Amino acid sequence: MTTQPSRALETFPNPAPERDYTIHFSIPEFTCLCPKTGQPDFATLEIDYVPEAHCVELKSLKLYIWSFRDQGAFHEAVTHHILGDLVAATAPRFMRVRGVFNVRGGIYTTVVAEHRAPGWEPPVPVTLP
Amino acid sequence: MTTQPSRALETFPNPAPERDYTIHFSIPEFTCLCPKTGQPDFATLEIDYVPEAHCVELKSLKLYIWSFRDQGAFHEAVTHHILGDLVAATAPRFMRVRGVFNVRGGIYTTVVAEHRAPGWEPPVPVTLP
Amino acid sequence: MTTQPSRALETFPNPAPERDYTIHFSIPEFTCLCPKTGQPDFATLEIDYVPEAHCVELKSLKLYIWSFRDQGAFHEAVTHHILGDLVAATAPRFMRVRGVFNVRGGIYTTVVAEHRAPGWEPPVPVTLP
Amino acid sequence: MTTQPSRALETFPNPAPERDYTIHFSIPEFTCLCPKTGQPDFATLEIDYVPEAHCVELKSLKLYIWSFRDQGAFHEAVTHHILGDLVAATAPRFMRVRGVFNVRGGIYTTVVAEHRAPGWEPPVPVTLP
Amino acid sequence: MTTQPSRALETFPNPAPERDYTIHFSIPEFTCLCPKTGQPDFATLEIDYVPEAHCVELKSLKLYIWSFRDQGAFHEAVTHHILGDLVAATAPRFMRVRGVFNVRGGIYTTVVAEHRAPGWEPPVPVTLP
Amino acid sequence: MTTQPSRALETFPNPAPERDYTIHFSIPEFTCLCPKTGQPDFATLEIDYVPEAHCVELKSLKLYIWSFRDQGAFHEAVTHHILGDLVAATAPRFMRVRGVFNVRGGIYTTVVAEHRAPGWEPPVPVTLP
Amino acid sequence: MTTQPSRALETFPNPAPERDYTIHFSIPEFTCLCPKTGQPDFATLEIDYVPEAHCVELKSLKLYIWSFRDQGAFHEAVTHHILGDLVAATAPRFMRVRGVFNVRGGIYTTVVAEHRAPGWEPPVPVTLP
Amino acid sequence: MTTQPSRALETFPNPAPERDYTIHFSIPEFTCLCPKTGQPDFATLEIDYVPEAHCVELKSLKLYIWSFRDQGAFHEAVTHHILGDLVAATAPRFMRVRGVFNVRGGIYTTVVAEHRAPGWEPPVPVTLP
Amino acid sequence: MTTQPSRALETFPNPAPERDYTIHFSIPEFTCLCPKTGQPDFATLEIDYVPEAHCVELKSLKLYIWSFRDQGAFHEAVTHHILGDLVAATAPRFMRVRGVFNVRGGIYTTVVAEHRAPGWEPPVPVTLP
Amino acid sequence: MTTQPSRALETFPNPAPERDYTIHFSIPEFTCLCPKTGQPDFATLEIDYVPEAHCVELKSLKLYIWSFRDQGAFHEAVTHHILGDLVAATAPRFMRVRGVFNVRGGIYTTVVAEHRAPGWEPPVPVTLP
Ligand SMILES: [Ca+2]
Ligand SMILES: [Ca+2]
Ligand SMILES: [Ca+2]
Ligand SMILES: [Ca+2]
Ligand SMILES: [Ca+2]
Ligand SMILES: [Ca+2]
Ligand SMILES: [Ca+2]
Ligand SMILES: [Ca+2]
Ligand SMILES: [Ca+2]
Ligand SMILES: [Ca+2]
Ligand SMILES: [Ca+2]
Ligand SMILES: [Ca+2]
Ligand SMILES: [Ca+2]
Ligand SMILES: [Ca+2]
Ligand SMILES: [Ca+2]
Ligand SMILES: [Ca+2]
Repeated sequence: MTTQPSRALETFPNPAPERDYTIHFSIPEFTCLCPKTGQPDFATLEIDYVPEAHCVELKSLKLYIWSFRDQGAFHEAVTHHILGDLVAATAPRFMRVRGVFNVRGGIYTTVVAEHRAPGWEPPVPVTLP
Repeated sequence: MTTQPSRALETFPNPAPERDYTIHFSIPEFTCLCPKTGQPDFATLEIDYVPEAHCVELKSLKLYIWSFRDQGAFHEAVTHHILGDLVAATAPRFMRVRGVFNVRGGIYTTVVAEHRAPGWEPPVPVTLP
Repeated sequence: MTTQPSRALETFPNPAPERDYTIHFSIPEFTCLCPKTGQPDFATLEIDYVPEAHCVELKSLKLYIWSFRDQGAFHEAVTHHILGDLVAATAPRFMRVRGVFNVRGGIYTTVVAEHRAPGWEPPVPVTLP
Repeated sequence: MTTQPSRALETFPNPAPERDYTIHFSIPEFTCLCPKTGQPDFATLEIDYVPEAHCVELKSLKLYIWSFRDQGAFHEAVTHHILGDLVAATAPRFMRVRGVFNVRGGIYTTVVAEHRAPGWEPPVPVTLP
Repeated sequence: MTTQPSRALETFPNPAPERDYTIHFSIPEFTCLCPKTGQPDFATLEIDYVPEAHCVELKSLKLYIWSFRDQGAFHEAVTHHILGDLVAATAPRFMRVRGVFNVRGGIYTTVVAEHRAPGWEPPVPVTLP
Repeated sequence: MTTQPSRALETFPNPAPERDYTIHFSIPEFTCLCPKTGQPDFATLEIDYVPEAHCVELKSLKLYIWSFRDQGAFHEAVTHHILGDLVAATAPRFMRVRGVFNVRGGIYTTVVAEHRAPGWEPPVPVTLP
Repeated sequence: MTTQPSRALETFPNPAPERDYTIHFSIPEFTCLCPKTGQPDFATLEIDYVPEAHCVELKSLKLYIWSFRDQGAFHEAVTHHILGDLVAATAPRFMRVRGVFNVRGGIYTTVVAEHRAPGWEPPVPVTLP
Repeated sequence: MTTQPSRALETFPNPAPERDYTIHFSIPEFTCLCPKTGQPDFATLEIDYVPEAHCVELKSLKLYIWSFRDQGAFHEAVTHHILGDLVAATAPRFMRVRGVFNVRGGIYTTVVAEHRAPGWEPPVPVTLP
Repeated sequence: MTTQPSRALETFPNPAPERDYTIHFSIPEFTCLCPKTGQPDFATLEIDYVPEAHCVELKSLKLYIWSFRDQGAFHEAVTHHILGDLVAATAPRFMRVRGVFNVRGGIYTTVVAEHRAPGWEPPVPVTLP
Repeated sequence: MTTQPSRALETFPNPAPERDYTIHFSIPEFTCLCPKTGQPDFATLEIDYVPEAHCVELKSLKLYIWSFRDQGAFHEAVTHHILGDLVAATAPRFMRVRGVFNVRGGIYTTVVAEHRAPGWEPPVPVTLP
């Protein structure tokens, strides 16, 4: 049976590589372990990317997220780790990962990291009134 | 009787072609089928456009949206498909289609694609305090 | 008795013509008739403007809005019509009219149009953290 | 492959038949067809029940909801129909179905129907401050 | 063409007369005229009823609501008037009309009136935790 | 000119004295003075009543509320004072006044008082599911 | 100077002892110390009471709340402590204290305690539609 | 080190056993595994109880919640399981556990179960206006 | 006693004149009189400024706001008046006053005016993802 | 025992110094004393920074925030003080501190200050549609 946690992110061909466009995932069910205490940590992940040749396949993304369930991970490091894995799997034009962690000790922490392909220029946004 | 689903988008003449202006549609009743499982998918579509000579007629837009009810469609591809059809029907100065899909497997997906007519420059936005 | 619907927009002298500044009206009680079916349509109007020599008098604006109650009007055209009348009455430096129409056939429509006086440059916005 | 729409509701044995307790389902993806116009209708279903010997199996409930996709159904009648099918499948102590239909013609309609097993008395609610 | 405002409320047979159940309409597009000033008034109507033999037909309800557009009506009186007309048309077991009027002079007014058929006892509500 | 603050509450005949029904006013613009410091206090008043022979006239209610602008008033006492005046003017079957005062010293205060006519029994509420 | 934290709650005579009525305080600035760790705890207090002969004076209530700033206090015990002090100071017909504590260890805790004067019967609530 | 997941719920003596009062916990970080698929499930637990001799110790409650992280659990059964464990540990006068599970297959499920000590009568709620 | 309404705005030395930074005040308790009708008007003021040598003292700001209580004032003019007084008192690098007035005649009005010291350039905003 | 309030901010090495990225803390439990009255003040702190070589350690940040509990502090000055301490401890590329203070005298105050390392240029934001 294939529904095991897995770090193997699968992709499919970008159906519109001629365009810069945005894919956004909101993932409220991220959990890992605190490396200091071993206790569970929880976060919502918000991912935005502009695909180049490959898009992230949704089911493999779910299994990838699941794979952190038993792993110790600091807030800052795990956000970069996830960004790194997703960039390695899809080589996107642009990707942003935002980890919105649950409150600990009265403090809410959010970490946001971005990757931008060398030479890629973001399109000037069209702001309509 | 004419109320059948239909891909035939109708238009009417832009009543103010001398201006760049914005028309926005919010359509919370989009549904299609997942090509992998055959099960229904649901989304809200948000469409913004700046018309050139033609505006989308509202009733034909409703029938067009309806026409996806029995069609298999991936999130990314269907967003580009709708953008392509609307651009073909209206040749707008600018158009943006945002597909906000319902959660599947604990992940919320949004896809946003834009078309810009060759040579059209978006007006510099007037930002009032 | 003067409280009749009226297209005659009244103005008063801008008390601070030396400044670019913003006046905003939010008007949730706009209603007109659908030209195709004759049935009532409803919208909220959002108006922003930068006055030049004249400001819109509030009571006459109320009577003006009322004057559309028995008039057939398409969403796109009536938004431009209202912008045109307000510009004719006040000759503002800038004006924006946003018509946020109630849902019809499962689709919510918003139309936004702007007027900018020839030669007027919008001030660069001051964005404070 | 079993993922076809299906009226065959499956059940599993109530794990706590010694207690009156509440199971609630919120189902925002209900769609059927208007029997007058043939056009799609949309609703959110809210179901509450107190099981007797059987609980509704979640996946079969999903396929059951899907089975209305191509069926003509009036708001009032379909709410009673769904209540009837669920009661037939599970013979609950109590069941309530609420159909919250999307706006049509400027009017939002909600229909709420209940079934109560003969002789079952609802427990007096414990209201804590 | 039949889409004219009309006081003639139409009904259809209650599909489940063997049950007490609830039908709710929320109607945000009610407008009439103030009898003192002749100016437009606006309200949202919330209607709940338990049908006996007849249910209100949705399209005729829309035309009925429209029929108040040119009529002078005090907040209190028009709420009772609408309740009276709906009761006359449907002879329900129970009906409640709530008129939530827009602010005038800094005061928001709501009027709520009920009708109960002689001899009808409301079912004891089942309150689940 | 009649628009002066005034304690003289005016009434009109209850258009439906044969029924117990509810009239609610929400008044977010109440202001008076703190008797200890002389500084302004602000509150939202929420008034519910069941009229007997007389209803409160809306314009006179506005002038009545205005009449507290220059009066010193403790939170508890002014709530009872307003209830007393409204009861004296309308002799209602039931009336409730809720004063929701703005925060002072880090504490938000609300005072709620009711009047019930001797012999009046509130109708058993009809609670629909 | 009198603005010191103080356990001395002051009162003033109830201006309407002939009535059962409600006074509510919402106090979002309660802080004390955790008796186990010595670290600060935070809560919002919600207090409802029906006064007998005495009402709580607002400024002394502020100083009373302040007096817990340097005191160790468990969630359950401090809620009862505050209820006890307020009851001792005012001898109310009824009082309820709700302590809504900030999240600790991923768990939000609320404690609610009530006092009822011997022989006092709460009035049957008047529930208007 | 003691911070391991643990089923051993600890208690402390109820500081106010002379009163019926309410303790509420809201726990948004519950996660277990689906027994059918092995994939993670997520829920928010809402717990209300009236203690008898013992209160639940907060830290042990956190470790108890953690202990479900690697356990397969159906929605209905796990809600009863948690209620059973908490009742066994504290022998409360009353306890209610509400499991609000994340959406699966487009359906949101909530399960609510209660325990009531033999002979315990809930206090008649005091409802203030 | 010094707590009288007063136009005399007091200041204190800017504790960080070496930096451009933002001070924001939100003031929901502004009230003045309508110059046409003499009736009360209400607004929320939102003030942003970048201080130069002087900061506004909070208590004197409260007394200044109070000083408009008995003054007739048009929405547009009073917003400029307050901006002028605050600029005269503090000579800030930048100041913005937004008056959000309560609805009158079904129309909500907001007026926004800014002052910028000659030669002061706003810092380029740092926009973090 | 180490859980004492402490000004000693601890750091750990930035795990991704090769990138500009954002760390955000939201801290709703800040409290200090008003230097004029000695009474408690409360605020929520919002901190954003782009780390250089060092990140703020979360537990030491909690103890640092705690250290203001018994200190007199003006709103403007304490915001700069906290920014200064955090900059001294971490030498970030960029840091912003926003102090959102609770209402006093009917006025809500927010103070926002930023530090930018000499020579550091903020990355041009990538704005996706
Ligand atoms: Ca969660
Ligand atoms: Ca965390
Ligand atoms: Ca839907
Ligand atoms: Ca989907
Ligand atoms: Ca309206
Ligand atoms: Ca419309
Ligand atoms: Ca419908
Ligand atoms: Ca009205
Ligand atoms: Ca007050
Ligand atoms: Ca405060
Ligand atoms: Ca706590
Ligand atoms: Ca707090
Ligand atoms: Ca689940
Ligand atoms: Ca106010
Ligand atoms: Ca006003
Ligand atoms: Ca403060």
